[in-house]
Amino acid sequence: MSIAPALVRTLAGIFGPALATDEPSRIAYAYDNSRRHALPDAVVFPTEHAQVEALVRACREHRTPLVARGRGSNTTGASVPIEGGVVASFERMNRILRIDPDDRLAVVEPGVLNGDLQRALAPHGFFWPPDPSSAPWCSIGGNLACNAAGPRAVKYGTPRENTLGLRAVAGTGEGFRCGTHTSKGATGYDLTRLLIGAEGTLALITEATLKLTPKPTEVRTLRATFRDVESAAHAVARIMAQPVTPCALEFIDEVALKLAHDHAPEAGIPLAGALLMIEVDGEPAVLPAAVEAVSRAARGEGLEELRVARDAAETQALWAARKALSPAQRTIAPDKINEDVVVPVSRLPALIAGIRRLAARHDVLVVTFGHAGNGNLHVNLLPRDAAERERAHACLAELFALVVALEGTLSGEHGIGLAKRPFMPLALEPATLGLMRAVKHAFDPDGILNPGKLLP
Amino acid sequence: MSIAPALVRTLAGIFGPALATDEPSRIAYAYDNSRRHALPDAVVFPTEHAQVEALVRACREHRTPLVARGRGSNTTGASVPIEGGVVASFERMNRILRIDPDDRLAVVEPGVLNGDLQRALAPHGFFWPPDPSSAPWCSIGGNLACNAAGPRAVKYGTPRENTLGLRAVAGTGEGFRCGTHTSKGATGYDLTRLLIGAEGTLALITEATLKLTPKPTEVRTLRATFRDVESAAHAVARIMAQPVTPCALEFIDEVALKLAHDHAPEAGIPLAGALLMIEVDGEPAVLPAAVEAVSRAARGEGLEELRVARDAAETQALWAARKALSPAQRTIAPDKINEDVVVPVSRLPALIAGIRRLAARHDVLVVTFGHAGNGNLHVNLLPRDAAERERAHACLAELFALVVALEGTLSGEHGIGLAKRPFMPLALEPATLGLMRAVKHAFDPDGILNPGKLLP
Repeated sequence: MSIAPALVRTLAGIFGPALATDEPSRIAYAYDNSRRHALPDAVVFPTEHAQVEALVRACREHRTPLVARGRGSNTTGASVPIEGGVVASFERMNRILRIDPDDRLAVVEPGVLNGDLQRALAPHGFFWPPDPSSAPWCSIGGNLACNAAGPRAVKYGTPRENTLGLRAVAGTGEGFRCGTHTSKGATGYDLTRLLIGAEGTLALITEATLKLTPKPTEVRTLRATFRDVESAAHAVARIMAQPVTPCALEFIDEVALKLAHDHAPEAGIPLAGALLMIEVDGEPAVLPAAVEAVSRAARGEGLEELRVARDAAETQALWAARKALSPAQRTIAPDKINEDVVVPVSRLPALIAGIRRLAARHDVLVVTFGHAGNGNLHVNLLPRDAAERERAHACLAELFALVVALEGTLSGEHGIGLAKRPFMPLALEPATLGLMRAVKHAFDPDGILNPGKLLP
Repeated sequence: MSIAPALVRTLAGIFGPALATDEPSRIAYAYDNSRRHALPDAVVFPTEHAQVEALVRACREHRTPLVARGRGSNTTGASVPIEGGVVASFERMNRILRIDPDDRLAVVEPGVLNGDLQRALAPHGFFWPPDPSSAPWCSIGGNLACNAAGPRAVKYGTPRENTLGLRAVAGTGEGFRCGTHTSKGATGYDLTRLLIGAEGTLALITEATLKLTPKPTEVRTLRATFRDVESAAHAVARIMAQPVTPCALEFIDEVALKLAHDHAPEAGIPLAGALLMIEVDGEPAVLPAAVEAVSRAARGEGLEELRVARDAAETQALWAARKALSPAQRTIAPDKINEDVVVPVSRLPALIAGIRRLAARHDVLVVTFGHAGNGNLHVNLLPRDAAERERAHACLAELFALVVALEGTLSGEHGIGLAKRPFMPLALEPATLGLMRAVKHAFDPDGILNPGKLLP
């Protein structure tokens, strides 16, 4: 163990049996979904804000790295303790403290699972919009740390648009509250949004006041196939330019469709140049008009087939292609590289054409799908051996350069972590990075919080 | 003149004839709508980003205060140069650089007027949601500086929810870009939202990339009168708890109604315990169901009359009470104190009852109206003489304490400026204020940007 015995004694005093230094525990908290590993020296399981204040102070006193962890479902290595030190797993700090439908808010501890919160909100007729595909097992604290979103963001926004206030402990060891209990506020600097997406490098979040949205009564699902990706991308732009904003507008490219089709031949997955899944939601009375509005926008040059699900069974059938994607890719390349670049919607055709060129030049299998309404594409590189893996990494660097040239940015919802940190200077000017470093220093003067992440 | 002659020479070199040091010009830029005055030593009119970089560097070199100014319509004194120095008026940096309907964004310079932007967007079928009542003559830069909103925020959010990225110059003199051209982003710290609402104390905004929203085709207007404010407040909570979010939900109290009624006896303004103006928007096909949903929610204990406008003339008649409010108040008390506190929607009845108690105890005429769907009330104290003005100020301090006790905050959309600065420690913990000061220091190490504002 490389951390000071005095720190371990202090942590034992704060956490009692909720401190683990045995090797099996350390191994269990050494990784995240990036599949990178680095052993922490100790793991603690806070359950109270005061413990987190004591924890940060103790780590600061000993200049020891401290990494906050939700459930480790992030894909960028943001919760891997690459410099050792202490991992604070918030999994036991998981109470829903308040659900307040009249004020459209919920107060939760960071360890509450996204799916558990949604289930608790449902009887009140509300939901919290962020819906990463890991929702059943990812935590709200992790969602906030990464600004994680999902398909619904196209209509309802990301955590930054759906969080009213936070309680947290800065790297100085000081606990503080920021934000409001109200849907509007102009009382000083917006520290709430600053912490969201900061990947635990500024402060550890101990409580969040979330903005709730009334649950739409019904959803209608449409599936549109297109001759090629360009015509699908143009349909996305048309759909986003009319007043009925869909609650999901998902894109799947030709390669991904073919993979899904071969993986689940019985599912009736269409083969096409590209596919869009479109959902609209609202009161039953308004849905026919909404379906008509998005259908009108979807129609145009290159549309092959537009189907509207008439019932739950048909809806499920239409989603089959999307559901088969992940298992199909995993079968081919267990070691896939999963990127989540984002460009303005009108640049999707250029991005997709560019990805195709890069895949050919580097001889890498690439499938592309994702949240087209936000211009947020998951670009999955599927190396089938070590040599292809090396080529994939070279391809990745050019992909990021392409995205930035198209006025896009490195990440829409996965964050930076370790994986994209070297590419930050591509996306951000030196002056912007300098200000981010100055903000980091203001919150965490000794650099103990999640060192080696996000900022290059 | 108290600024260094060398600085004036440098400014003349940067700005040429767009530098003014004559007394009439200085007087013209000495005030804002708070009716406070303080003479600047010089006024400059930037038209280019590079000028603003040179300006900040020059002011920093001479440790001279620099105050950014939109059109001075803010009510808190945020743009009054209380320590003298240089005022930078952005009124001539007012080009709309790009309107991009496919990507739902517009790029504008800070001096563009809110109303001019809306007019330019209309032919494209889009709008930018923030709509302060000063929209025809207030600037986008000022809207961003104050996080100014308006009635539509209840459905469409404030500038923080409707801005994608910024270009700015920090107090260090360094220009930088932050944010994205996309509706999603998880690439580093959210400096965009940090600058919004910072009242020019961190950086001077030179360009903004705004998120556009498709313009709803039609609007329907409803007016509901209630026996008392409590039943109106409960109706607000019911309306906000169902899925159809109105695009305006405005409240007017009994005293304000009476004033408006007496001021415009011909306008048919109803006398009631409270009045709600409700608007819903959307495609024509969806509006009847939307009107029905909010009507159902508005009905309940204490409702006296619910009217739905059938045409434009009736809509105008229903809004008569709201329109008559400002002139009515100005007639009584030209020196009104206009506050914009905000509480969770469910605490509106308690806030309104508390305001009534405070008005009685301090013997001050108080009228209350505002954006009830956000819990954001404009509390107007109308002192009719100097003694009442003194009592009004005592009343104000207790009002803020009440608001904070109800989990609310000092400002929903006007900001802090000079007027509410002494009350910041009521609303924010010392640790939160300490972090805000550290952030200020990171952006503006010499404290030259808008000194004496926002942070106590």
